[in-house]
Amino acid sequence: MNNNRYCVIMAGGVGTRFWPKSRKSKPKQFLDILSTGRSFIRSTYERFLPIIQPENFLIVTNRAYRDQVLEHIPELKPEQILCEPIGRNTAPCIAYAAYVLKKKNPDAQMIITPSDHLILNEVNFHAVVEECAEFTANNDKLLAVGIKPSRPDTGYGYIQKSSNDSISRVKCFTEKPSLEVAQTFIECGEFLWNAGIFIWRADSIIKAFEKHLPEHYALFAAIEDKIGTEQEVAAIEQVYTECKSISIDYGIMEKADNVYVHNSDFGWSDVGTWGSVHQLSRKDRYANALSHEGCFTYDTRNSLVSVPEGKVAVINGLRDYIVVDTEDVLMICPRSEEQSIRKYIDDVRFAKGEEHI
Amino acid sequence: MNNNRYCVIMAGGVGTRFWPKSRKSKPKQFLDILSTGRSFIRSTYERFLPIIQPENFLIVTNRAYRDQVLEHIPELKPEQILCEPIGRNTAPCIAYAAYVLKKKNPDAQMIITPSDHLILNEVNFHAVVEECAEFTANNDKLLAVGIKPSRPDTGYGYIQKSSNDSISRVKCFTEKPSLEVAQTFIECGEFLWNAGIFIWRADSIIKAFEKHLPEHYALFAAIEDKIGTEQEVAAIEQVYTECKSISIDYGIMEKADNVYVHNSDFGWSDVGTWGSVHQLSRKDRYANALSHEGCFTYDTRNSLVSVPEGKVAVINGLRDYIVVDTEDVLMICPRSEEQSIRKYIDDVRFAKGEEHI
Repeated sequence: MNNNRYCVIMAGGVGTRFWPKSRKSKPKQFLDILSTGRSFIRSTYERFLPIIQPENFLIVTNRAYRDQVLEHIPELKPEQILCEPIGRNTAPCIAYAAYVLKKKNPDAQMIITPSDHLILNEVNFHAVVEECAEFTANNDKLLAVGIKPSRPDTGYGYIQKSSNDSISRVKCFTEKPSLEVAQTFIECGEFLWNAGIFIWRADSIIKAFEKHLPEHYALFAAIEDKIGTEQEVAAIEQVYTECKSISIDYGIMEKADNVYVHNSDFGWSDVGTWGSVHQLSRKDRYANALSHEGCFTYDTRNSLVSVPEGKVAVINGLRDYIVVDTEDVLMICPRSEEQSIRKYIDDVRFAKGEEHI
Repeated sequence: MNNNRYCVIMAGGVGTRFWPKSRKSKPKQFLDILSTGRSFIRSTYERFLPIIQPENFLIVTNRAYRDQVLEHIPELKPEQILCEPIGRNTAPCIAYAAYVLKKKNPDAQMIITPSDHLILNEVNFHAVVEECAEFTANNDKLLAVGIKPSRPDTGYGYIQKSSNDSISRVKCFTEKPSLEVAQTFIECGEFLWNAGIFIWRADSIIKAFEKHLPEHYALFAAIEDKIGTEQEVAAIEQVYTECKSISIDYGIMEKADNVYVHNSDFGWSDVGTWGSVHQLSRKDRYANALSHEGCFTYDTRNSLVSVPEGKVAVINGLRDYIVVDTEDVLMICPRSEEQSIRKYIDDVRFAKGEEHI
């Protein structure tokens, strides 16, 4: 394995879309929503283990989740977990990791990945990462992994490639498009899903920050010598208090002119909604995704039922519903109303405080 | 208060209609399904306390529920609880209590009541009981309490009265009729609901057993001298093993010719179904009966939601549903399918054993 390659797992998410199963105290990356036998973050770690040395992993997370990260990946040494005091989206997270790695190894290459996605074909994935890492090893190129789209999904970001080569220059980035636009993207054949996986040298992305996010660059550059010292925590606290929240896509990828995309296809999903969980789950002959064999359904179709292990669920007469039961919250919601979860959370918070959130 | 009057509370029920809230280990009489602040059995006890001396209560129950009865009515002395080894319907239950009371007091009058019904107008109820007790105090008459019906309910038994006097001879008993028959009953005006409340002298009902259920009579008469001794438990065990399961209505009331009915009206329900719970509960402006203020409903109508205290329920898009959540079972079922609960129980038992029943 190449000693210069580092895997940076971004695990600071506090998403609410899987409420009530996901909680502020236990967000999606620590859950096993697809019942694979391991959490998303554990799966992500294990996915990279065959191609990255164990000491070359970095996990960036909120300090509130530090202990949970260690629970799920006990192999980590404490210094492999970078703690953010507050979430500031992906750009500061990546800057922090870049400075840590640059200090450790001037030739460090970062393979950046979300902690809560699904990848089905790992062999193919490893080959893609290898190709991407070779492509960016000795130059100043920023590379994103793009996924051949299989449907006009309006929940994903899109990347327009400029050729049919496996790696090509990016023409443009487009955030979640309308259905019409997504359909033209699919027909046109030039657009790939943005998987949120990035590969580049640490010094390359730092250079990109200097050019495109100079305020962020200045904040991190000013504390560079404190990284790896006892002053790191206080310095990072200060930086995060002052720096703006911004995504790496919006802050750098959309602006830089040295951006490339890999045209990949390895069975990927961001598992971003209960709908996608239903889609990805094993279903009975009535298209119901049931969390375990304790779910008894009658006249029920196209529904997702998630109840705790050991609990019995008897469900009669639901079509296209999501039923999620946890110890202290029960949610019953039509699949078409999934986007209302945010509203439910607001209503429950308003009436009952943070306890059930 | 009249020292000869005894209240016999029949509390051996193991009904399944309120599953999963009611369980074999905690049947309906020990629940507070209407959220009144006390269990059915406690309410029944307190309803009679103003008119029956505390030492004149007898509770007949399955031996498995003995401790629960004491929990709910700690005022009872141990000898006030008669334990049945197995359920044999109401006739053996009443025979047992009759022999116990006859031995205690040859002039004993029994006021027999189910343990799990609702009565709204207690003042009126007390007056009815007083009138019934006077009517049967010194003669050999068997008296049932009939309720003026308010709708052609097909879940109740009916008693045909022979006059408009408050107490009249019974023309006939009819078990759960069809809707058409129930409608003619209502129009005819001679029919009352059978509340399962009976009032008579202990020696009268024993005489009736001798005539109409001679096998039961023989079994109990043979162990009469063991009642109140250390041999009672073993003797009752033997009697229950040998005697047939039969209701007092079918076994005696329908056959005897000294049967009377009181024409009553005191706000009564047997609270026999989730539908009746919905009907009797306080409802929000969308006709939803919600178990507590932690139930958040959206686009939901005419539904009953029962979740444990302290748990949040978010319910979207249900019409005419029953949602009952307990620690280890969740049931979601259209109100029109309530009679399927028996089938659900069978299916769960077949797949998972007795644990959730």
